[in-house]
Amino acid sequence: MALERLELLSSHACFGGEQRFYKHFSVNEIGLPMRFGLYLPPQALAGQRVPLLTYLAGLTCTEETFATKAGAQREAARLGLALLTPDTSPRHTGIEGEDHHWDFGVGAGFYLDATEHPWAGHWQMESYLLKDLIPGVVADLGLDSERLGLFGHSMGGHGALTLALRHPGVFASLSALAPICAPTRCPWGRKAFLGYLGQDEDAWVAHDASRLMADATTPPYPGGILIDQGLADKFLAEQLYPEAFETACAAADQPLSLRRHPAYDHGYYFIASVVDDHLRHHAAQLGVAA
Amino acid sequence: MALERLELLSSHACFGGEQRFYKHFSVNEIGLPMRFGLYLPPQALAGQRVPLLTYLAGLTCTEETFATKAGAQREAARLGLALLTPDTSPRHTGIEGEDHHWDFGVGAGFYLDATEHPWAGHWQMESYLLKDLIPGVVADLGLDSERLGLFGHSMGGHGALTLALRHPGVFASLSALAPICAPTRCPWGRKAFLGYLGQDEDAWVAHDASRLMADATTPPYPGGILIDQGLADKFLAEQLYPEAFETACAAADQPLSLRRHPAYDHGYYFIASVVDDHLRHHAAQLGVAA
Repeated sequence: MALERLELLSSHACFGGEQRFYKHFSVNEIGLPMRFGLYLPPQALAGQRVPLLTYLAGLTCTEETFATKAGAQREAARLGLALLTPDTSPRHTGIEGEDHHWDFGVGAGFYLDATEHPWAGHWQMESYLLKDLIPGVVADLGLDSERLGLFGHSMGGHGALTLALRHPGVFASLSALAPICAPTRCPWGRKAFLGYLGQDEDAWVAHDASRLMADATTPPYPGGILIDQGLADKFLAEQLYPEAFETACAAADQPLSLRRHPAYDHGYYFIASVVDDHLRHHAAQLGVAA
Repeated sequence: MALERLELLSSHACFGGEQRFYKHFSVNEIGLPMRFGLYLPPQALAGQRVPLLTYLAGLTCTEETFATKAGAQREAARLGLALLTPDTSPRHTGIEGEDHHWDFGVGAGFYLDATEHPWAGHWQMESYLLKDLIPGVVADLGLDSERLGLFGHSMGGHGALTLALRHPGVFASLSALAPICAPTRCPWGRKAFLGYLGQDEDAWVAHDASRLMADATTPPYPGGILIDQGLADKFLAEQLYPEAFETACAAADQPLSLRRHPAYDHGYYFIASVVDDHLRHHAAQLGVAA
């Protein structure tokens, strides 16, 4: 499964590896060109088949945000982990008003397949990631398909938790930073689900991490899930609901390390401060020697 | 010497310390409001009098660029170093055409005091840093005035080398990343010096790091200067001339570690890859235990 019309836009030496940015054409899922970032650690450049961690970014971000701001390449180079950073939505779709809202449309794909007009035509981020981008990157770059990890921030934390729960067996490790844990209950999630999935709230539940975990009969990630949350995060009370996910994990006997950090906010200074721990969490679950 | 009308714009917990952004009014030097970034490590928040490293950024950058992209706070937190990131020029001066060029005017102050109309009115970056911002930050934040370090990138590398050589005794440690080493000989430098200093090239020499070092009769930084340079840097051949500074250091018996890195370019992925070494270089010279 190769990526169509793959084009290397730029490549930058970084901690002995390479931070690359690519463009490709998502023929079957998005129907448009898409961009992504890929960090290849020195071990990959030397020919080793390394694990791939996919990081899903938050509202308004692009494929560049995490690569630029999180400072994760240093530890990824040490551990020998490739880092994939997809974009957060289709862009330039021609849909009227696609960029009129910062929390819906462009930059706000919510990592699901839209069913409502006009979004259903291109907003197929779940299928894009699972059927196109991740398998394509693994195949084209010679990465290890048996050792895939998934993590993300805010809207991307919602994406990581829901996609990992909706596709058992694909990802071997899971973590999230300040994730939207109960989108059926928060304004960001309700706005997105209404627009992308329509008025039938029953269809929303399958994209709510806490509801999905509540339905688990056995722990889906027995090795444990790591979540970091800042307590000075201005979105915590209204949008994130980590306690809902915590309750659902407890009921499912799903091991969860939910670390609450006084003073930290929602931004990339927080992410940078804890991202090494996430890489080590994934490395341990993926059998990478620290 | 306090900063005038100091205003905290934002503060973000980061590696146990705080990444802050401030605004103040530079009454005597710039004559306008200026912004800066300041990372305070956990040791400073706990009341220790920590050293201050000032980082001068390159063309088009702001006070945010290094704070966002370099990933230096982790090692600064470990070593207990404060990091000051000034802006790269005055802004909103009302001068016609101030932002018509990416390499002159706004975002391109070249860390000198302009003498030519209309720039001389506000473009006084050397005096701003030495008489206003650095002593003001040290005084207002309770930092250690005896342990100041200076480093920078590209135009800011020029700034670091020239200011450290022009003001002996102020800075106890010095380094640079891909610095403009011989601005009297390169297009960026000649354009800036012509515009800010006028046609008399004799006035330019005092702002050329290689010429200043060539005039040194004793090594100005006997502990050594660290310079990192990527060999895939597209500006290397035409704009940077590290070999000129290397020759001048050799003639002056100035210890210089000029590290040439195959494959690395001019950007922040390069800076992030080597910045920890710069912090350790400064820490060692400033007597900080590693």
